[in-house]
Amino acid sequence: MSDQGPFASAPNETHTQIMRATYEALRKHGYSELTIQRIGDEFPKSKSLIYQHYDGKDELLVAFLEFLLERFRADVPTEEFDDAREHLETIIDHGLPESLGEEDEAFTTAVEALRGQAPHDETYREQYARINEFYRERTADVIHRGIEQGVFREVDPEQAAGFIVATIHGARSQRVSTGDHEPVLAARRELEEYVRTRLLVEENR
Amino acid sequence: MSDQGPFASAPNETHTQIMRATYEALRKHGYSELTIQRIGDEFPKSKSLIYQHYDGKDELLVAFLEFLLERFRADVPTEEFDDAREHLETIIDHGLPESLGEEDEAFTTAVEALRGQAPHDETYREQYARINEFYRERTADVIHRGIEQGVFREVDPEQAAGFIVATIHGARSQRVSTGDHEPVLAARRELEEYVRTRLLVEENR
Repeated sequence: MSDQGPFASAPNETHTQIMRATYEALRKHGYSELTIQRIGDEFPKSKSLIYQHYDGKDELLVAFLEFLLERFRADVPTEEFDDAREHLETIIDHGLPESLGEEDEAFTTAVEALRGQAPHDETYREQYARINEFYRERTADVIHRGIEQGVFREVDPEQAAGFIVATIHGARSQRVSTGDHEPVLAARRELEEYVRTRLLVEENR
Repeated sequence: MSDQGPFASAPNETHTQIMRATYEALRKHGYSELTIQRIGDEFPKSKSLIYQHYDGKDELLVAFLEFLLERFRADVPTEEFDDAREHLETIIDHGLPESLGEEDEAFTTAVEALRGQAPHDETYREQYARINEFYRERTADVIHRGIEQGVFREVDPEQAAGFIVATIHGARSQRVSTGDHEPVLAARRELEEYVRTRLLVEENR
């Protein structure tokens, strides 16, 4: 999560304000207690504007999920790194930071609050599948480049990336559902060992 | 998940029947649409019995979560294995099976449906923390034994176990939120490689 949080762009635009209000209401009340009324309480303009934009809570939440996941995409480290190993370590550091900022925790909480609904809603599943795919492909590209550079061994880049992304997701999910940062730290340290023993070619370890 | 599913013991006992009704209602409607009315629709006895046992939905769901997590505990492979490597592989195979049975998927869906509420409810967080701790400790014991047996290298058993449990949870969560089994297969295969390259002592690889 960047320092400006997920609402940095056009903060006064109505769509962004509705998204921010949804985020605040979800953060305060959780998914099961979320109502348009409570979203309206966090919205600086007239509540009727929310209804002008969305037919109801379900439509609003799908738009919100799309908004969150776009922010997530924009936030995965993609700057050009010359060294694939350094790039992969940055992805791991970004996903499993030594400490989780308040904004980052609130963001993860919001993404995870809606995930439980996915098995019952295809639109949600598509959103989670899209972001999963994006994160995995981005990571697989880095591993693929590392193999070309002779830094990484000839592993299956898709499989290794799927594994790394599952671990990062799992530890973050445990973090927000147990309130304990330890799962993130254990996963981070051991993922570094995985990179060293499984991915790096012998002479680079 | 064992073949009998989570309701094998005393299936006609009222408490088990309420738990089963909650499970069925949650499976059909998801968390956000869950009501006592809908739980009552799945319950073979009078709905008033549910109110005799629980003050409301929240109390019922906490009892349900406890019930699920007890079943989860009972299901983690704990039989005595002579070989720590074989035991660890059984834990991985159990957590990340080649294919997910219908019962196992429904069970995971139910556990994950309630997880999103955890950041907002300390009782939920405690339940998720308990099961996380149980799973991690059980796995750490196996790794510890493998080190003693000279099968595994001298890694930090707690850290390695935390990593394995985070990966298993992450892949299962991705499985039910995307509807795609591929994350489980990728995590399974690469976790086997992790065991080989990171845990096993050189002469056993």
